Amino acid sequence: MKNHGIAVHGGAGTILKSAMTPQKEKDYMDAIEDALVTGDKILSLGGTSLDAVEAAVKYMEDFPLFNAGRGSVFTHDGKHEMDACIMNGKDLTAGSIAGVKNIRNPIQLARAVMEKSEHVFLANSGAVAFAKEQNIPIEPDEYFFTQQRYDQYKAAKNTDQIVLDHTPVSVIEGKKFGTVGAVALDQNGNIAAATSTGGMTNKRWGRIGDSPIVGAGTYANNKTCGISCTGYGEFFIRAVVAYDISCLMEYKNLSLKQACDFVVQNKLVKMGGEGGLIAIDFNGNIEMPFNSEGMYRGMKKSNTPLYIDIYKD
Amino acid sequence: MKNHGIAVHGGAGTILKSAMTPQKEKDYMDAIEDALVTGDKILSLGGTSLDAVEAAVKYMEDFPLFNAGRGSVFTHDGKHEMDACIMNGKDLTAGSIAGVKNIRNPIQLARAVMEKSEHVFLANSGAVAFAKEQNIPIEPDEYFFTQQRYDQYKAAKNTDQIVLDHTPVSVIEGKKFGTVGAVALDQNGNIAAATSTGGMTNKRWGRIGDSPIVGAGTYANNKTCGISCTGYGEFFIRAVVAYDISCLMEYKNLSLKQACDFVVQNKLVKMGGEGGLIAIDFNGNIEMPFNSEGMYRGMKKSNTPLYIDIYKD
Repeated sequence: MKNHGIAVHGGAGTILKSAMTPQKEKDYMDAIEDALVTGDKILSLGGTSLDAVEAAVKYMEDFPLFNAGRGSVFTHDGKHEMDACIMNGKDLTAGSIAGVKNIRNPIQLARAVMEKSEHVFLANSGAVAFAKEQNIPIEPDEYFFTQQRYDQYKAAKNTDQIVLDHTPVSVIEGKKFGTVGAVALDQNGNIAAATSTGGMTNKRWGRIGDSPIVGAGTYANNKTCGISCTGYGEFFIRAVVAYDISCLMEYKNLSLKQACDFVVQNKLVKMGGEGGLIAIDFNGNIEMPFNSEGMYRGMKKSNTPLYIDIYKD
Repeated sequence: MKNHGIAVHGGAGTILKSAMTPQKEKDYMDAIEDALVTGDKILSLGGTSLDAVEAAVKYMEDFPLFNAGRGSVFTHDGKHEMDACIMNGKDLTAGSIAGVKNIRNPIQLARAVMEKSEHVFLANSGAVAFAKEQNIPIEPDEYFFTQQRYDQYKAAKNTDQIVLDHTPVSVIEGKKFGTVGAVALDQNGNIAAATSTGGMTNKRWGRIGDSPIVGAGTYANNKTCGISCTGYGEFFIRAVVAYDISCLMEYKNLSLKQACDFVVQNKLVKMGGEGGLIAIDFNGNIEMPFNSEGMYRGMKKSNTPLYIDIYKD
């Protein structure tokens, strides 16, 4: 039986211990742990990495503290527009959605796009129409209302700022790139990756970030690795971050760690691209590099205990 | 003074000489030539590759025979939804739009996203709102009406097929992936790439193809190459085609020709991904590989005469 493993993230950014309350810290750590346990249980029982990453991301989408699903930030129009992507490293199939409203679990819709449509990427009202055909759960606007996000939105709108999940009205959060994601390797050696996000507070113009873009924010390939990113999406798109790591492994024979370090700590830093990612390779090695102050993250390998952290070393 | 060069394409697919009239063939060849001459003039005068690819693509967007801009196919709802992307190999900046209606020249809007917004990728009505702020020309629905596309749409809708620019009511076109694109190297050694498409006839659900996705349908990097793809977009997204070619050059030291051949004739063929691409490298080498029956294509290097073709060899 091969090693299996899972890693999850809940966003990266300026997350300072000095600005966090013990309760808030515990809430985040508990949520990361629960997402990991949810995915690990599937893997331990011989389930697929695809099921594990979907379940872990779904858990985080349902948890209001993360900027994805229920906890998604408000757009400029006071709505919630969500993006997500899931990819199967076994056959390189993928499903992406962007700009969808009222979908309870965007990652579930992304998986339906992958498995039930002939397309890879569906957007906006068209994607929601597809969701309805597929009986994907829809929720009213109220479901996505959280006071914290609304306060962020009002503050951002008043100053006409487009902010990346920044919390100007609160001391407990700094600049934070709100996204959730999971990567996993199952007992059959199959890798999967999933990413889901509510985007940026006060965003306009139907902005799409890196999360739903295969190769940018999300990628999985059994030959190399599975990647889910979180950060300043525009830079991650331009640097094709997730596929870059895969190519550095496949074409330049770098290890997962070497590839991750080079892209996150060198290339992205030079461009000015703040953020991080989680990565798992075909041997079950896991890396969780970031160049920001912190990243909500955790991992569970079949042969090691749970590891969960928020800050730098 | 360094070599400069430009290549353009007007889509790939089942384009059979036996099914083409001499007049139609001439119309396509003339349009390819005019697009090339438009771009080449800019490059010869010392202009930027960015200006050259934008001008060449704009020319093809205005020409009703290509599935982009004015000649875009009809969606399921009888509308025209267009996607485009432009990328600057000098600094890896990029601009993408998806699902935009009534924009005369989508490539012009993509460039405005790149240069005038803080984002890379805007979609749907949000992207059109941005276009209006930027005074990008808007046209009424009638501008995008062409009888040929309407006949395709009615035929597709009657059979409930989603077709990739297929023309079931006409003998002159077979399965054709309608996209236009240009890549160029200017006298300063800067590479640019641009792609624009009207997508698939009778498309639904806000489907986004590879054209607007940095790394999939479009990519440019002065260190390696500029790429614009045309084909079955879902496969090009999953294979991250454009960035793959760049990575094979950068990380595996393949030549442009070796990288293009491997991806188009080997990887894509194995996946079932029909189509082709145009590519230019930092030395001005140009490749235009495709694995379909034909591809409307042409190139002009500073030191060679015009080359224009539609069919294989």
